[in-house]
Amino acid sequence: MPDAAGPLVIIGGHEDKDGERLILKEIAQRLGDGKLVIATVASHEPDGYFEAYQKAFGALGVTHLVELYVEERPETLSDHVQEALDGAAGVFFTGGDQLRISSQIGDTPVERRVREIHRAGTLIAGTSAGASVMSDTMLVRGSSAETHRIGDLHMAAGLGLIHDVIIDQHFAERGRIGRLLGAVAQNPRVLGVGIDEDTAIIVENGLATVHGSGGVYVVDGAGVTHSNIAEAEPERTLSIHDVRMHLLSAGDRFELITRRPGSAKTLKCSERLSEVAPEDRKAIHGGD
Amino acid sequence: MPDAAGPLVIIGGHEDKDGERLILKEIAQRLGDGKLVIATVASHEPDGYFEAYQKAFGALGVTHLVELYVEERPETLSDHVQEALDGAAGVFFTGGDQLRISSQIGDTPVERRVREIHRAGTLIAGTSAGASVMSDTMLVRGSSAETHRIGDLHMAAGLGLIHDVIIDQHFAERGRIGRLLGAVAQNPRVLGVGIDEDTAIIVENGLATVHGSGGVYVVDGAGVTHSNIAEAEPERTLSIHDVRMHLLSAGDRFELITRRPGSAKTLKCSERLSEVAPEDRKAIHGGD
Repeated sequence: MPDAAGPLVIIGGHEDKDGERLILKEIAQRLGDGKLVIATVASHEPDGYFEAYQKAFGALGVTHLVELYVEERPETLSDHVQEALDGAAGVFFTGGDQLRISSQIGDTPVERRVREIHRAGTLIAGTSAGASVMSDTMLVRGSSAETHRIGDLHMAAGLGLIHDVIIDQHFAERGRIGRLLGAVAQNPRVLGVGIDEDTAIIVENGLATVHGSGGVYVVDGAGVTHSNIAEAEPERTLSIHDVRMHLLSAGDRFELITRRPGSAKTLKCSERLSEVAPEDRKAIHGGD
Repeated sequence: MPDAAGPLVIIGGHEDKDGERLILKEIAQRLGDGKLVIATVASHEPDGYFEAYQKAFGALGVTHLVELYVEERPETLSDHVQEALDGAAGVFFTGGDQLRISSQIGDTPVERRVREIHRAGTLIAGTSAGASVMSDTMLVRGSSAETHRIGDLHMAAGLGLIHDVIIDQHFAERGRIGRLLGAVAQNPRVLGVGIDEDTAIIVENGLATVHGSGGVYVVDGAGVTHSNIAEAEPERTLSIHDVRMHLLSAGDRFELITRRPGSAKTLKCSERLSEVAPEDRKAIHGGD
């Protein structure tokens, strides 16, 4: 059966808000005239975030925006906060600190409601910290612009809207390939997805499509033959052998179940696949 | 037959000069009390470079150092410059601009002599620009800390001391994975080797060993299934699918002919291989 869950729009930070707005346009198209919740909970001082998105989305015809912010966990119990999500066509998690999102709304009615409306078809978007938090396990800290040391990777439980994936953001800009390799070394079951600024993947029905101006680095550890991640010395520099990597850009697609990329040239083929009856797709893709 | 060429010490820049000096120590061990030529030709203003290495190597017992510098090509014809290389046990190319090295000494008696003494067993080392220049084709410019655009990669002919390899340096520090993927996309015959600061590979008999504090990223494009590198629009972001990548660190080895890594744990096995008779090694490795 096709997945009834809503689209996930996972953005690497600094998406264009006043030019072509390629990524925000994709969101606007999917929202129609529906209500968009701007969740600024990742930020300690969210002043101005809501207004910036109000302006950016307003020009794209999305005019019904409400802000969802909680300073402290108990606020998640208030009717006012919970009502913000009622009838939402989409929720957009802004940037800041992914641990603030998980620590403030994790295991609260707000988190449960987000998960529930996503399962029922609501679009969930997130940029920067809001992107990282979408996975089961998320990267919260690790060295940028240097090669990962074994002991220098900090993970935490995320919102779990997407499984078996670790997302990293501001990827090329902050030189984060080392830490993403470290995360994949910890458990190759998770697929590493590093997203550049002003770049996004939109995940619908298990298929990720790339949008925006930068690249998306996919790190597949299924074939890894050696890593030293479990060694005792935390200062040791990471080794990992036989990683499969894909660099995707606008127009590329990636099928999460089969872990196979498709290019702009094979688009027609992928599109044809989506017209195949669900039972047959399952046979083709080995799952659904 | 085992290769008679001297070792190549290829350093990603900023090697430790006053602490443990792990990389300079490896060079010193191979030089014994031989003469080391510090080639500062990569720099427009080489003042202080020679003195810094004199100090760093002096403390390691390498006391016979001479400087090789040419401001303009005609100087390469002078006896004084050519004599600098006479009887050298090693030549060390310092950092600066790789195009200065190739444009000032390329196709001159100095370049020919460097190649000749290397073939006869002399150690050649290079850091930063001095590392990049060692390959047949070298990377001279390309965006760092952003994903590579198709038109934004500038290559030039290097010194050709090592074949079918492209070297990039200051690798994790400057976020250069995108441009190395671009170089490999241009022609997957070349193996991409990105070396972090204070990190080196030492290539002896076709085997690269890793030294120093950072990582070495090996990008193998042999299995690439798609790239858009030959598309017309230079502003297009690179796509490349199915790259094999290895992240190596101190103690790891990499066999250039077979393109296979080995870890500290498999060292003994590699060492045993080197004890095998040359004819048998050829059979094992498919070439020599």
